[in-house]
Amino acid sequence: MKLVVDTLGGDNGATEIIEAIKLFKGEHPDVEIFAVGMKEDVDAIQDIAHPVYAKSILPMEAGVLEAMRDKESSMYVAVETLLKENADGIISSGSTGAYLSLATLKIKKIPGVIRPALITSFPTIIDNQNVVLLDVGANNENTKEELAQFAKMGLLYSQIVFHKENPHVYLVSNGSEKGKGSPLVKEAYSLLEKEPFFFGNMEARDILKGEADVVVFDGFTGNVYLKGSEGMAKMMSGLMKDAFKRSIFSKIGYLFAKKGFDELKSKMDYKKVGGALLVGVNSVVVKAHGNSDRQSFKAAMNVAYNLMDKRVVQQIKERFLGA
Amino acid sequence: MKLVVDTLGGDNGATEIIEAIKLFKGEHPDVEIFAVGMKEDVDAIQDIAHPVYAKSILPMEAGVLEAMRDKESSMYVAVETLLKENADGIISSGSTGAYLSLATLKIKKIPGVIRPALITSFPTIIDNQNVVLLDVGANNENTKEELAQFAKMGLLYSQIVFHKENPHVYLVSNGSEKGKGSPLVKEAYSLLEKEPFFFGNMEARDILKGEADVVVFDGFTGNVYLKGSEGMAKMMSGLMKDAFKRSIFSKIGYLFAKKGFDELKSKMDYKKVGGALLVGVNSVVVKAHGNSDRQSFKAAMNVAYNLMDKRVVQQIKERFLGA
Repeated sequence: MKLVVDTLGGDNGATEIIEAIKLFKGEHPDVEIFAVGMKEDVDAIQDIAHPVYAKSILPMEAGVLEAMRDKESSMYVAVETLLKENADGIISSGSTGAYLSLATLKIKKIPGVIRPALITSFPTIIDNQNVVLLDVGANNENTKEELAQFAKMGLLYSQIVFHKENPHVYLVSNGSEKGKGSPLVKEAYSLLEKEPFFFGNMEARDILKGEADVVVFDGFTGNVYLKGSEGMAKMMSGLMKDAFKRSIFSKIGYLFAKKGFDELKSKMDYKKVGGALLVGVNSVVVKAHGNSDRQSFKAAMNVAYNLMDKRVVQQIKERFLGA
Repeated sequence: MKLVVDTLGGDNGATEIIEAIKLFKGEHPDVEIFAVGMKEDVDAIQDIAHPVYAKSILPMEAGVLEAMRDKESSMYVAVETLLKENADGIISSGSTGAYLSLATLKIKKIPGVIRPALITSFPTIIDNQNVVLLDVGANNENTKEELAQFAKMGLLYSQIVFHKENPHVYLVSNGSEKGKGSPLVKEAYSLLEKEPFFFGNMEARDILKGEADVVVFDGFTGNVYLKGSEGMAKMMSGLMKDAFKRSIFSKIGYLFAKKGFDELKSKMDYKKVGGALLVGVNSVVVKAHGNSDRQSFKAAMNVAYNLMDKRVVQQIKERFLGA
């Protein structure tokens, strides 16, 4: 398997990503890595990765024009490398907008797909039951037809990645009854109504209860949900830490309860989830968090690895065309 | 002060609300209560509240037509009582859609307001710093002009209720840079750009960091944010409980750390926040959670009390017209 890594574009610079490559390569010596970045950075790891040189970094606010124009940016070079080397996947923590544009324009969409979507998963209150979320930010607005396609891509993702035979797919809305929602959700509901996998509307407060295997949003709302939930989880984790730090007694309490809380922390650490897949394009295109450190970037590389290993793009392509 | 209470319409029946009235009246003997509901329920508390009879309950999915047609529903009668008694406020845990319709059509909007919004607040990581959120669900879709008005109503709410002199108001978007967002957010940005209180876009993950005093969403997105965050907070609380229950050691740990965790629980208990105000109409119209128990309904009654006491509607009316 071949994986192209954009070592630039994240908030924490190339160092963390270079370290992530080392960690990942230690776990997966079989994967051929193409490390795209500044000469001095990528030459330093040429014993474990093919160095590919780039000269600039796309700024976080880069749009489609800038992304296509700067042919020496690490992201552009990475996409070119993917195509040239016929690699199986690509990963970057750079600008989502630019990445989406480059992926759509150069790697191309799977035939039949109207718009790609960013897909990721969250843990739920049920152990080992994850919920697949899409679109969490590839799009600023969507049509009803796009939402209906997201439902189908989410279904396939859940089947392939989480081995669910009959995933339950929901539309996220402001009420669970039929007829509730934005005009867009109401329209998408009517397109999906007859699909056997479609279970109706779900309120956002029920997403983590474990009943839904897949929940569908437009890209703007999904992004607000994803980041809002992350913000809340982070705040609660901080408050928990404070609660344990309060006094000598609470510190002793922590020692007694440590094991359970370490598990909680591990379950809720969104850095472990790592990356989101840009689903609907002709390759495993993984977006890592902009503020990824080495551990979270490595986790995102693992996401890419699993998706390549499960041939998720090929499978979606076959089944999507057959649908 | 006069407060009208719809004792029906919540998921938990009249009993919890009747008990909430008793608790509230114990704390605020000065407030005149009009308890609207089934004869047997409201007659039972006629020593502390004026009983007003209703004969039916609007179903949760009731829309505007049903709300206006069923003139014997507790919500309709409650609104009529508000008008007839010239009361200062009204509270219900019934259907948001029906409540919004009745409030808009019968209590009427404040002159100049295009659409009312549901406004509430969340705790943040900074102690005693709350963030005001609107619209969290009064509307299924909004225009840029409505978002710009929400920003102004949120500003006033923050000034009046939280005594902020210069509240920082943000639009929630999928990126913090100018130019990010749905078409709607981009348009609202340009309307707000020159306002001194407007601080730009904010990503949902930053809402609880304490920098924003007010954040503005369209009603659909705000509802997903609110309920999504509640869902995450609930899941984390459950996981914390589980972590402490794991073993005899962790249970001992809980005893040591109890005080801090009780504070955390208290801070994060959304039932304590209680109610959301329907801002933009000519009265204090408070929506309590559909699943309110006696404590959370009492908390919502306290929200109504504070808003009536601070004459928030009169102040918004004066300042809104002056703007």
